[in-house]
Amino acid sequence: MSVPQLLHYTLDPTSRLVRLMCAEYGKDIELVHLKAWRREQDFLDVNPAGEVPVLHVDDQLTLVGASAVIYFIEEQFGAEPLLLPKEPVLRAETRRLTDWALGKFSDDVSRYIVEEKFIKNDRPGGTPDTTVLRAARANLSEHLAYFNYVLATRPWLAGGEMTLADFALAAQISTLDYLSEMPWDSVAEVKAWYQRLKSRPAFRPLLLDRVVGMPASANYADLDF
Amino acid sequence: MSVPQLLHYTLDPTSRLVRLMCAEYGKDIELVHLKAWRREQDFLDVNPAGEVPVLHVDDQLTLVGASAVIYFIEEQFGAEPLLLPKEPVLRAETRRLTDWALGKFSDDVSRYIVEEKFIKNDRPGGTPDTTVLRAARANLSEHLAYFNYVLATRPWLAGGEMTLADFALAAQISTLDYLSEMPWDSVAEVKAWYQRLKSRPAFRPLLLDRVVGMPASANYADLDF
Repeated sequence: MSVPQLLHYTLDPTSRLVRLMCAEYGKDIELVHLKAWRREQDFLDVNPAGEVPVLHVDDQLTLVGASAVIYFIEEQFGAEPLLLPKEPVLRAETRRLTDWALGKFSDDVSRYIVEEKFIKNDRPGGTPDTTVLRAARANLSEHLAYFNYVLATRPWLAGGEMTLADFALAAQISTLDYLSEMPWDSVAEVKAWYQRLKSRPAFRPLLLDRVVGMPASANYADLDF
Repeated sequence: MSVPQLLHYTLDPTSRLVRLMCAEYGKDIELVHLKAWRREQDFLDVNPAGEVPVLHVDDQLTLVGASAVIYFIEEQFGAEPLLLPKEPVLRAETRRLTDWALGKFSDDVSRYIVEEKFIKNDRPGGTPDTTVLRAARANLSEHLAYFNYVLATRPWLAGGEMTLADFALAAQISTLDYLSEMPWDSVAEVKAWYQRLKSRPAFRPLLLDRVVGMPASANYADLDF
């Protein structure tokens, strides 16, 4: 069987989730870097939504969009303990919080920060809009306060076990951390939880990522920040 | 086994998808109408995101958020032919387009139209913002042009069979149709597809919905519009 190809860009949080899942399940994938935001026609022909991740599994199967990619990996490459647990309460809670990370958190926080601090950098004369950044940071504080509260009551986001929800949020946070946007001092529970995740072997490749001309935050790869 | 309770409001597109799925699978649910947008504390305690659908399955299990509810129904109440097919290409395409309907289409179009034309009606002195409505309508035209193109090449959204993607988009469209926002004359393929869906028994309860003080569009319940 051929190695699947992942179209991604380094700081795309959802692509990072895909990479984390594959690493956790020991599934090799080939990374193909794509400046998806340029919306070039070749890529729009593959995904009219113009977004990564896209996973070319083989000649017969190309997966487009976050859910298609993530749940394919879970179903086809997953091994015990599964990231999407079978027990109904934990499964529902995993879905609720995975959706939150991929949807609400992304829509309120990370897509603005990625757009202003990373994507605009690729455009001649592009400079971050400080009003947008300020709003995204205010939203970030609210989201983190909620997750900090959840993690004060449970070891992992969805309950007693590490699940897809942990990976989904950690992928988002890893991008923000790269861009020096994580207010670690004000969210002790989130910090302790992220330290545990960061120490997993699956996380290592992400911590080695670097973007040309855009250094990572000082503690980005530090396991004991 | 007790009858699950669905917290919803009449014109919420995702709650409509839940109702369609349960009707298609012959699963009885009890509807509990909730003005979720008022974000009352009792409800925020159940769902900090302040959104419906929420499904109380029993004392042990409350499902919160679109994915948790929808995929629980699929997995627990689903019967052949399943709305999320097993065949990998169709399964991936179903997920891509279901996500599109619940995510992109909702974010670009329906949530603005529902907010301006329906939710604001619940607020003293609330009047629709015509600038927002104009932008949402322009987005709607673009989305419909894409779906019209897809439906010119296939009988159903994801391919040769009716799937969850059809229900997810039809649920969105049914809300817009109620609010007289569907430009039927310009999207012949979408119209023919929607007519087929609308004729299914599972659709009937939705077509009987009425909102007090807000009549449905003239052809809302008409099967041959």
